[in-house]
Order: sequence, then structure tokens, then C-alpha cells
Amino acid sequence: MNGASSMMHTLVNNDVTVCFCNPGTSEISFVGGLDATDKMRGVLCLFEGVATGAADGYGRMKDWPAATLLHLGPGLGNGVANLHNARRAQTPVVNIVGDHATWHLKHDAPLTSDIEAIAGAVSGWYHYSGSARDLPGDTARAVQASLKPPGQVATLVLPSDAAWDPGGPPVGRLEPETQRSVPSERVTEIAKVLARGEEVVLLVGGRGFRAEGLRHAAAVGARTDVRVLGDRVNSRMERGAGRYDLVRIPYPVPQAIALLEGTKHMVLAGATIPVGFFGYPGQPSRTAPPDCEYHVLAEPDEDVIGALSMLAEEISATPDPDRAGRYEPPPLPTGDISIEKVWAAVAHLMPEDTIVSDEAVTSGRSSQAQTAGARPHDWLNITGGSIGQGLPAALGAAIACPDRQVFAMESDGSAMYTLQGLWSMAREQCQVLTIMFNNGAYRILQGELERLAPDATGQTSKAMLDLTQPDIDWVSLSQGMGVEASRANSCEELVDQIRSALTHRGPRFIEVLV
Amino acid sequence: MNGASSMMHTLVNNDVTVCFCNPGTSEISFVGGLDATDKMRGVLCLFEGVATGAADGYGRMKDWPAATLLHLGPGLGNGVANLHNARRAQTPVVNIVGDHATWHLKHDAPLTSDIEAIAGAVSGWYHYSGSARDLPGDTARAVQASLKPPGQVATLVLPSDAAWDPGGPPVGRLEPETQRSVPSERVTEIAKVLARGEEVVLLVGGRGFRAEGLRHAAAVGARTDVRVLGDRVNSRMERGAGRYDLVRIPYPVPQAIALLEGTKHMVLAGATIPVGFFGYPGQPSRTAPPDCEYHVLAEPDEDVIGALSMLAEEISATPDPDRAGRYEPPPLPTGDISIEKVWAAVAHLMPEDTIVSDEAVTSGRSSQAQTAGARPHDWLNITGGSIGQGLPAALGAAIACPDRQVFAMESDGSAMYTLQGLWSMAREQCQVLTIMFNNGAYRILQGELERLAPDATGQTSKAMLDLTQPDIDWVSLSQGMGVEASRANSCEELVDQIRSALTHRGPRFIEVLV
Repeated sequence: MNGASSMMHTLVNNDVTVCFCNPGTSEISFVGGLDATDKMRGVLCLFEGVATGAADGYGRMKDWPAATLLHLGPGLGNGVANLHNARRAQTPVVNIVGDHATWHLKHDAPLTSDIEAIAGAVSGWYHYSGSARDLPGDTARAVQASLKPPGQVATLVLPSDAAWDPGGPPVGRLEPETQRSVPSERVTEIAKVLARGEEVVLLVGGRGFRAEGLRHAAAVGARTDVRVLGDRVNSRMERGAGRYDLVRIPYPVPQAIALLEGTKHMVLAGATIPVGFFGYPGQPSRTAPPDCEYHVLAEPDEDVIGALSMLAEEISATPDPDRAGRYEPPPLPTGDISIEKVWAAVAHLMPEDTIVSDEAVTSGRSSQAQTAGARPHDWLNITGGSIGQGLPAALGAAIACPDRQVFAMESDGSAMYTLQGLWSMAREQCQVLTIMFNNGAYRILQGELERLAPDATGQTSKAMLDLTQPDIDWVSLSQGMGVEASRANSCEELVDQIRSALTHRGPRFIEVLV
Repeated sequence: MNGASSMMHTLVNNDVTVCFCNPGTSEISFVGGLDATDKMRGVLCLFEGVATGAADGYGRMKDWPAATLLHLGPGLGNGVANLHNARRAQTPVVNIVGDHATWHLKHDAPLTSDIEAIAGAVSGWYHYSGSARDLPGDTARAVQASLKPPGQVATLVLPSDAAWDPGGPPVGRLEPETQRSVPSERVTEIAKVLARGEEVVLLVGGRGFRAEGLRHAAAVGARTDVRVLGDRVNSRMERGAGRYDLVRIPYPVPQAIALLEGTKHMVLAGATIPVGFFGYPGQPSRTAPPDCEYHVLAEPDEDVIGALSMLAEEISATPDPDRAGRYEPPPLPTGDISIEKVWAAVAHLMPEDTIVSDEAVTSGRSSQAQTAGARPHDWLNITGGSIGQGLPAALGAAIACPDRQVFAMESDGSAMYTLQGLWSMAREQCQVLTIMFNNGAYRILQGELERLAPDATGQTSKAMLDLTQPDIDWVSLSQGMGVEASRANSCEELVDQIRSALTHRGPRFIEVLV
């Protein structure tokens, strides 16, 4: 058995059964190895950012990694943006990067590149597997490392001779580290902060956004005067009917500052100290008041849900079912299309256990309000700010959860980075409905330009944020990728097209001009 | 004047007048700064790999850099693959990467990433410009650094406050270092090697591929028994009628070994010691015989053309005009489409001074023979092996040389990585004709799989190299990007469509199924 085949058995032994692949010559033995077991699913991606974003989406849904297969430094480079998002989402990913044969490296052939440097920017764990004998053990350790709480990108470099040489035997399952529970003394201290009668924000992050975490947090909020808010960045929110919703800190810094005004204490439950997504002239980096004191209930790598549960118990707070979200979807919209109406249609029509991959950016501003009363669903956010996440994450989520409907809520500027994800959806017949808000612009940047460079009145700067001239025909692009597509020119058409997508197997694409 | 505006004037003062932009919020002041002078052309790219590949294509044609504008570490990551090609092509590129405001960095906001690590993998020069005061000087030094012979990627990190704060005054032109001439003693020594009567290969690389270098090399070959060959990897070849063609070392290692068999001495003129693009089991890395002695006529950063001229003079070799290429294009093809016939049509119809951006991969095997007798033209190769170069390089070449026709000779697998380049061609009305060889496969990898993993007979491995299911409709993709497209089903249709493209202003796209 060569190294690649032994690696494949080891991955399967460790429950890694999906690999999002974009192979090259140095990965050919790995590709051949995919046939070593019938338990490994290879998903071909035509661009590496699709592979890494799909692994992120998969890991977010499964809390277990998929593997990627990338081609040396340049392939890894193409995957960096979505690995960056995975890093910020704390997603377990086994990121396999092929390399030259060990003995070929020193000759500096054209594709030779500093893989370690690039990988370092996105990986919590990195290892160069120098021989086929060591490869199975290294593979099992990579899976284990990816699951180190709260989850991380583990990059394993696979030289081609380590794949084709006779390999060591497959390695069995290595149990991952479990999340540390928080000490009860810490919970007691936090309870004292809550009892002081000063303005407290309980900021939920990480796995605190799962339904159980939100339920405990809501119980704390109901029992005290504490305001329960959510971190801006999070990997997966369980929302909708029966869940306990919360307000996330807004993206615009002035709005975040306004929301947090008066906060004397901030209790961090898996969250980090809130800061602006970007720095702006004359605005602070931290959005809570300067005299706010921060108290850690749970670090991101600790058991956040357990900590919230302990805190609720400590103060005798029980969830109030009346505060749980009701099933109250907005009515079906009619007439002319607007962004809000699109969200209303989605909220009305989405089936139970829908997964929403949200990359609507400026077209998503009303999304939280519109969908709060929808059927229970999962919501995947852009975590690291690298756009081009939405389609790949939807692909990965659909592979992870084949029985669930996925909505990829897209914007034209963002989707363009990784539109190749549509092709993989078509090939894998993923149950993904993409809804494209086409506004013909980097709309978010137009606002920033007005704010940051009000004197920039020339045509060159404006042209850099304009996606018309030529208009992008997304229906044509989607069809070119093999995904059936249509444009909805009215709410009636939109509703019809969504209904059709939900009742047919396979991906669909709907464009709306907004 | 803010830092960004001063930077823009400094770029223009240093003859950098094109910036391939994919901006984000942290780059907004730079975008505003584009209006500070009417001499800076901003070219919007909808994916960073398009921006970096276009800068590579531009730099190859101009021997002077364009700038890029990328968005933090993830944007740089997306640009890495084509920066890697630029590095291997020794192309001058001023690679500008926006970053958070200096004071915002320590807060580890979501987009914060290790830009320096990623940049290190592709940059010959790196600098973090820490203030608006220093920015103009740093900018001028970045341009100068990019031109350090033979040319390199100079990455300048631009924190957003360095762009929006009041800037130092614009800096004037800094003269770049010139190429060192090779010492005459070295040329004399090389001449002695040639005179020994042993088998010698003169291997031409780098700028030796320009017409003048090839003329001197051909003179040496005509005067002696030396075989003149070309490096596999090179940035730009001047070919066709009136030029002196040469054989490049073939990509397949066995063919390269066969070609170099018996070589006792290899004289390197701007070339590096030939090695396989990849290492293969049982095959050596170096393709010349193990006892081959290497002699450096000119290092890549030395004046290669001058060295070849000195060598020719040293041995009293003058170019033999009879050995220059004649204008002997193949006849216009008729009937069913084949790869060879497509190249024949291109060779027959390409106007003088055409630029060919070649990413045809397996569909390009007959390209050199078919086009040798075409009108004089420039040929751009993939240098670093990162596919997804062809469309961006064509875009950049067309911006650099607006009066010349560009042919982007593409393959389906490769073009998919950076198909967004089509949109920028449409916006800029570039004179680029893309011809897409659609073979529905990663054909080159299918060959590798048969060779390296002959036992891989399962469906999973084969599926990873197959680009059908669904078929990709490139006409639809091109039209979605705003580039008029057609499919040629016969040679007659192909010829008609090429003729139409050549007589109309703006980009066109022709798909052939092969």
C-alpha cells in the first residue's frame, strides 16, 4: 500500500470522509489513492478557494473536518482567503497541500515555493510529512490537531514521494482533545459582576451561538438586567422559531459604539473584545466605552455552552419559553422586487432546518429581522471578512447535510471571487438555491468612499467600485457553470422560482436586480 | 495632500501609470487618490489573481512595472498564484497591499493577517510603509526595487492611515539599477569551452529570448557545433518571421533527457540548470547527463543580450540572415476542427506584432511548429506553473500595448481559475481574442494519473480530472462576463470568427471543442 492509500484509510479511520480537491501533478498519487477505500468522497473544485471555503462550510456544520487537496504554494495561495475565514470561524479543516518530491525540492523547479510561509498565515498547526512511512501517523495527528478546541486549520504538506512510496500501515482513530470546562470559581466571580447593579453586557461568541448556548444566555438575560449581545463574527448561529435570538454588534463602528454606550462591564462568553472591522480616522478601535471592564466567562477554546449553563444555574436562571422565537414569518411579498421583499420571501418559504450561507453584504441589512420568525435554521456568516465565501460554504454545507435545503444569499461583487463553486454544486447535485442580489456595484465601498474620501469626485475612483460597464449577466454565468438559472423580475416570479427550486433536486440560481 | 495622493504622484513620476485594482475598505483612500492625477489609469479587476496576472503581463511587455492594489492578507493570497508566475518570469511588479490602520492592527480585527509571511513567498523586496510621511519615498523605492535586475515583485504594504493622513511631498524619479555587463574574461573562458570540440549546449534564458539575444545566439550556433536551446521557462519570446527560433527544452522529463543526451558542457545564458518541472519516481531531477559541466555566461540578473553579443564577437560569429525565420504561415485550414488546425488558423491570420498569451497546456503541443512561420509576434509563457495566468496576462499585455492584437490561447481547466479577467477585458475594450480549447478535462493530469497511479481504476480518481458532468459552457460564461462569444464548429467558422474579431475593436471569445 503506498503512502497515499494508507493516508486515505487513515483519514477514513478518523472519520474524515470528504475531500475537496483541486489537484495537480504533484497530487496525482493522492488522487489515485482516493480509490483505496469506497468511504472517501472526492469533490472536485475548479478553484482552490472553492475547496477551502467548502471545507469551512462542511466543518461548521459537522464540527468535524473535511480535507482539502491543494497544489503547492500557488494552490494554497488561492485557498488562503477562505482558509482565513475558516481560521476566524474556528473551523476544523485538514488542509492537505501537495509538494514536490522531497529530493526534487532543492532544484528549485518552477513551482517550488515557500509553502510553510503561506500556510503559517492561516494554520494553527503545520507539518511537513517527510516520508511515506510517517505519513499515516502525521495524517491522524493532522485530523486530531484540526479538532483542538475550538477548531483550527491543520495544514499537512504532502511531498509526492511520500504519497507514492510504500507507506506505513494506516493509523486508527486518534481522539481529539475535548473542550476544557470553565472552573466554577470563575462562574461565581462572573455572577458577582452581574449582581453589582451596573450596566453589563453578556457577549456571546463561538459555539455560544448554538441553540443551547443562546437558551442559557437568554435565561441569564431574563433573570438579570444584563444585555445579551452577540459577537459580530461567528461561524454558525442556530436561529428561527423555538430559538433565542440576540442582537449582534453592528458592523458600522458608530452604530456599535451607540449600542454599547454606557456598558461598564462586558462578560465574554467565547467572544473576543469587540473592535471595529476596520479602523477609521477619529474613531476608536474598541467599540465599548474606554472605561468598560472585561471579564472572561469562557475563552474561545473552552466549553462556552457549558459555561453559559453554569452561569445560568449559578444565578438560578431558567429559560423562559415565552421568550423563544415564535413561528411568525413575514407574509409572502407581492409586486416589485426589493431587497426586503426578497428576504421576506426567503423567510416565508424556507423549510425547517434550512442552512443559510449569508454573503449578501449590503443587501443583507434587513436579513436578521426578516428571518427571525422563520422556521428553525442555521446561519453561516462571513467570519474573516474575505468575500468569496458564500458559494463555497454553501457547497460544503450541502455536502455535510445532504437532507437539508441550503440557501446561498449572494451579492454580485462577493460571488465573483469564487463563482466556480456553482459548477461543483451542479456536479454534486447539491440542494443549494443561490439568490443573487445584483446591485452592479461594490456598494459597501461606495459608502466608504463617500465617508473616507469625500473629495474623490473623479471618474477613476468611482469606476473602481462600479460593476456595470459591462453589466454582469449572472443567469448566463450560472448556466455556463451548469446550474439552472433564472431572473426574477417581480415578487410573484421570485416566489414561483423559489418554490420550484425547493421541490426539485439539485442546485438552482435566481438573480434579482436591486 | 494625503499620503495616497502623494503616492499616486510618486508612482506617475516614476512612470508607473497603470494600477490593476481590487480594492476593499482599507484601500478606499488609495482609490480616492487615483483621481489625484489624470495620468494614472485604474483597471478594476474582480478577482485579485486577475490583477496580479495582468501586472505580470504588463510588466513583461513594458519591462516596466504596473502597480496592483490588493486587500490585506486574503486579497494578497488570491494574488499569490500569479505573483508566483511573475516571480519566475522576473517581471517588475509594484504590488501594493492595503492593511489596517497602524493603530488598529494590535486589536486583531477579523481581517488581520500575516501579510509579510504571504508576501515573502513571492516578493524579492518587501516593505511596510508605516506613515504617510514616509509613503512617497517608500513608493519610489518600491518602483526602483521592482526593477532591480532582472526584475522582481516589490511588495509595499499600505496601512490605511498612511494613505489618509497628510503625506510627505511626492518623490521624483529614482533611477533603477542597470544590468551588470559580464566581464570579458568570462566570455573568453566560455569561448574556450566552445572550442574544445566536445558536445556543448548553449542554453538561452531570460531576456536572451528577445530577438536580439536570439540573433546572437543563433550566430554562435551557426559558427560552431554548439546546439542552441531555450530554457523551458521564460517570460517573453520574440518569434516569427525575421526572428531566430530555437527549441525549448521539452516539458516531459524523458523527452528533455533525450534531447540533452550526450551534452558535456552546458553554457547558461540567463538560464538556470534545467530540471524537471516535477520529480517522478525513478527519474532524475536534472535532465542533462550527470557528468555535464555547467558554465555560466550570464546570470539571470546580468546583461544576457550583451553577453551573447560579446560571445558572438569573441568567436567572430555573425548572424546568418538565411537562418532567420521566413514568413511561411501554414495554409488556412478547412473542414473539421482539430487542435493543429486551430493553431494553423491562428498562425495564418495573426497580424504583425501580435502578442500570444499561451495557456493552452496540452492543446499547445503543436503551437511552436505551427506558428514559427507566422508574422513576427511575442509569446508569453506560463513561467511558474500556476495556471490561471493566460487571461490576466493577456489583459495586462493589451493594456501595455493598446495598438497590438492579443491572442489568449486558453484551456478550459486553466482559464477557469481567473475567468473574471474577461470582464476587465470587456470594460477596458481590450483587443484580446480568446480562443478556448475545451477538452472537458484536466488532460495533462489524466496522462500523469496513467503514469503515476496505473492501479487507480476507480471512478473517484478519474472524476477528479474530468471537467464534464456538467459540461462547462464557455460561450455562456464569456457572455455573462460581457465578452461577445461564439463557438466554432468547423474550420470555416473558426476562420470567419477570427477574422471578425480582428476587424472589430474590443475583446472576443471563440470556443472550440477538442
